[in-house]
Amino acid sequence: MKVGLAQLNIHVGNFRANTDKIIKAIQTAEAQGAELVVFSELGVCGYPSRDFLEFDDYINKCKEAIDEIALHTHNIAAVVGAPSRNPRVDGKDLFNSAWFIYGSKVQQVIHKTLLPTYDIFDEARYFEPNCVFELVEYKGKKLAITVCEDIWNVGNENPLYIACPMDELVRLKPDLMVNLSSSPFSYQQYEERMKVVYANCKRYNLPMIYVNQVGAQTELIFDGGSVVVSEKGELIEQLPFFQEEVRVVEVGEKPKPITYHLPSKTALIHDALVMGIKDYFGKLGFRKAILGLSGGIDSALVLCLAVKALGRENVMSVLLPSAYSSGHSVDDSLALVKNLGSPHEIIPIEEPFQTYLKTLQPLFKGLESNIAEENLQARVRGTLLMAMSNKFGYILLNTTNKSEAAVGYGTLYGDMCGGLAVLGDVYKTQAYELAHYINRDGEVIPSNIITKAPSAELRPGQKDSDSLPEYDILDKVLYQYIEKRHGPRELVGMGFEKALVDRILKMVNMNEWKRFQAPPILRISPKAFGMGRRMPIEGKYLG
Amino acid sequence: MKVGLAQLNIHVGNFRANTDKIIKAIQTAEAQGAELVVFSELGVCGYPSRDFLEFDDYINKCKEAIDEIALHTHNIAAVVGAPSRNPRVDGKDLFNSAWFIYGSKVQQVIHKTLLPTYDIFDEARYFEPNCVFELVEYKGKKLAITVCEDIWNVGNENPLYIACPMDELVRLKPDLMVNLSSSPFSYQQYEERMKVVYANCKRYNLPMIYVNQVGAQTELIFDGGSVVVSEKGELIEQLPFFQEEVRVVEVGEKPKPITYHLPSKTALIHDALVMGIKDYFGKLGFRKAILGLSGGIDSALVLCLAVKALGRENVMSVLLPSAYSSGHSVDDSLALVKNLGSPHEIIPIEEPFQTYLKTLQPLFKGLESNIAEENLQARVRGTLLMAMSNKFGYILLNTTNKSEAAVGYGTLYGDMCGGLAVLGDVYKTQAYELAHYINRDGEVIPSNIITKAPSAELRPGQKDSDSLPEYDILDKVLYQYIEKRHGPRELVGMGFEKALVDRILKMVNMNEWKRFQAPPILRISPKAFGMGRRMPIEGKYLG
Repeated sequence: MKVGLAQLNIHVGNFRANTDKIIKAIQTAEAQGAELVVFSELGVCGYPSRDFLEFDDYINKCKEAIDEIALHTHNIAAVVGAPSRNPRVDGKDLFNSAWFIYGSKVQQVIHKTLLPTYDIFDEARYFEPNCVFELVEYKGKKLAITVCEDIWNVGNENPLYIACPMDELVRLKPDLMVNLSSSPFSYQQYEERMKVVYANCKRYNLPMIYVNQVGAQTELIFDGGSVVVSEKGELIEQLPFFQEEVRVVEVGEKPKPITYHLPSKTALIHDALVMGIKDYFGKLGFRKAILGLSGGIDSALVLCLAVKALGRENVMSVLLPSAYSSGHSVDDSLALVKNLGSPHEIIPIEEPFQTYLKTLQPLFKGLESNIAEENLQARVRGTLLMAMSNKFGYILLNTTNKSEAAVGYGTLYGDMCGGLAVLGDVYKTQAYELAHYINRDGEVIPSNIITKAPSAELRPGQKDSDSLPEYDILDKVLYQYIEKRHGPRELVGMGFEKALVDRILKMVNMNEWKRFQAPPILRISPKAFGMGRRMPIEGKYLG
Repeated sequence: MKVGLAQLNIHVGNFRANTDKIIKAIQTAEAQGAELVVFSELGVCGYPSRDFLEFDDYINKCKEAIDEIALHTHNIAAVVGAPSRNPRVDGKDLFNSAWFIYGSKVQQVIHKTLLPTYDIFDEARYFEPNCVFELVEYKGKKLAITVCEDIWNVGNENPLYIACPMDELVRLKPDLMVNLSSSPFSYQQYEERMKVVYANCKRYNLPMIYVNQVGAQTELIFDGGSVVVSEKGELIEQLPFFQEEVRVVEVGEKPKPITYHLPSKTALIHDALVMGIKDYFGKLGFRKAILGLSGGIDSALVLCLAVKALGRENVMSVLLPSAYSSGHSVDDSLALVKNLGSPHEIIPIEEPFQTYLKTLQPLFKGLESNIAEENLQARVRGTLLMAMSNKFGYILLNTTNKSEAAVGYGTLYGDMCGGLAVLGDVYKTQAYELAHYINRDGEVIPSNIITKAPSAELRPGQKDSDSLPEYDILDKVLYQYIEKRHGPRELVGMGFEKALVDRILKMVNMNEWKRFQAPPILRISPKAFGMGRRMPIEGKYLG
């Protein structure tokens, strides 16, 4: 059977655009001889639709889209993801469903069984789990259709779940597995995902068509990478990462294995961040970005990523030197914008800063200069960038990295301003890897920027290491605490010094209030700050 | 049987303080002759502990606290709320449990069955539901112990749930119902809650001891209001709202009904907000607040509430007049701080504002003054307030109301600054009710402040009504959309004008990005912005 895999960049709630895109993909697949075309999970409305799902009107719009799509399935069947209503009074109002549509009609609706409710997933908030298992019969083949997480409890090895939908479905003797996914990118997710697909094919001795959403929805970046795997667990077809594509594949007849194409981890993170920026702007209807270029590695990286995503002419860099800025900060920044060919402005912050000091002098007189004056400089920069943003329609990109966000090393309403935090899930040590990757074919980021000691330059001769542990140690402790959720006793057991562990964990927990007001962060790790990590602000634990 | 109701103000993650408080309450109850003392849901660690629950170390600390508490139950039994580990490999790792402790030992652990997963609740994220039903036998009585939501499906009338724990337990012939709750305040929750308690008592013909958490945990405010209700559904005992108390009650012997004491809705909202401020400061270890006093009703209200919560000497008002501020703004503000006897400063913003304009002049020249200059003034104010905050250790209170937050009428990093948004769940029309309530025994807020037309005063003669629909209409539409989740078609069906509905809903949806960076909001409604309302930023639905 010839099957189309429609790996589409869906826009949450944009029913007109999504419906048009789905219909076009059906036509493309049909023109290439496909008899069936498979879309991603909740593809009609986009994933995650979040609390839009609580609006009756939104669910009605999903059904109207399905009805419109159905009109284009006269000669080809489509499996489309959309919510469906639970006819029972008790339980949640919705199922997360795969709609099997053919002959201009909805033929069957299959519901998701395993509802992820952890990290960034909130499915138990909206959906009732399925408990009825049935196949879809089409052109003499029996299809076992599942939705995303449903294939993630293979062999009951996933401790989260008791049910195993494919164990149920395989008793009905299917010929082919079809999975609709919206599986967001992290730097380990694409490997986990392939393991799961291979394991299913081998366990059930069935081929699988696996279609993933592509594109970013603010924090979440979906990488695509849809595949077809044979019943022997051989890769037959692979769609690209971070690109839309409709590809038609002959499934089941003498499969010809191919080699899995896997870019480096750093390359994937790079491409994820570029798509994250691009879709944030594209889906919100913006075109132009602005950022403050400090001469440090983080802002240099954000500029490179934004230029890649939006085009050099659409990214304005602003150099905002102060009395404490080193000469090389300006020179290095100028060298970078020259390398990229992108526009820049220079706005010294000294005058507004001094005026604030004068205005506050009656209140501050006799008091020593401290964090208040340091933050003031950062806030002058934030205010100037936002004034540019408001006047010219630029969206401000935030350059805070994950190490800084973790320990609260940054000024709220200052360098923490911005519409999108590009590096908020990238540790400082990972930032260096990205910089080297960007320079892989020649120097884009001047080597000075990469080699200098990190500094906020808010007082004379300041270095990050004055206030923070060295980043290579800091990042290791943060990783164990944030990604691995190890507590202080475990960390000390791993060999980290107790005083250091206590200091770092206290900094992380004390700064929940600050992160609460941070911009949305592009998620590239299995545990990012943002919707997937929900901490009490007033919590006293280790704080 | 004499039973103690321990309505305590628990601090999330503060195991030392919570354990001490629980032990002290056991001793108090015992001294008053109680044989049993009941605490609130998850009282050992606090509700909501959120993702702290994912740390093994946190769960260990809960168990250590239980073990310490147990040592004080030699002559009195205690029912204490804490997580417990799920011994099964499959499913979530934890139960949300009531620990029955007596004779210095844990005797029995009862698990919660109905796990709320909607609005601000995320229990399916952490907990496995119970499916084993048993009573606790103690001194010849059989206790049916349930946890919070477990009593909220009485007569299976709650469409969210299929199970009904009390229907199961009643088959085992209990003598008494005991419920441990952490039921957060909203202006309709206390009535719903009493209906549920009464309905349970009548349906099962059993008395109930209902103990609720009290105190605020950043966004969520728990109002207490614990009760004892007889098997006939008569109120026997009522603990106060918004106050800690340990009260010992004789249960079951010739109950003497009392009248339910219910303050007005506005009085409860007032007290909730005062407790919200007080606990935010107390639990985070802060003492002093600062706010910008504009001469408008919102900042006047926040000042009054903060003075009530923190003491007049601990709330600094700053008047930040601009060239566009009307003379009465300053006079009215001065009259207010005089009435309250609280300190103030005046910092004109003209100089920093003009310096910014001068600094930006090379870039802005020839362009008309617009939103950029308006926002600039708001940001100068935010920066000055934050400088005061950093220098003197004040925490900035945000004064944005729910109507403004809904439609994005406010400047990010300007008047949207602050550690806590006191009125972020209070519509403008409700703000007037609160102001009248504060003035109930004489003028505290000058009448000028209440009667003048709302204005941001960012350009000459500006009024809110230039950019927004009148608040009485706006708030009605917002209420239907936000609290009631009615879509555009339903709103038009209710008689609202289509163009107005479309305009308002678009403003709400377009401003998710702005609200994302707003301070935490004290929740007083059934649907507040914040953790209970999760919307996609890039969503295109009605946006």
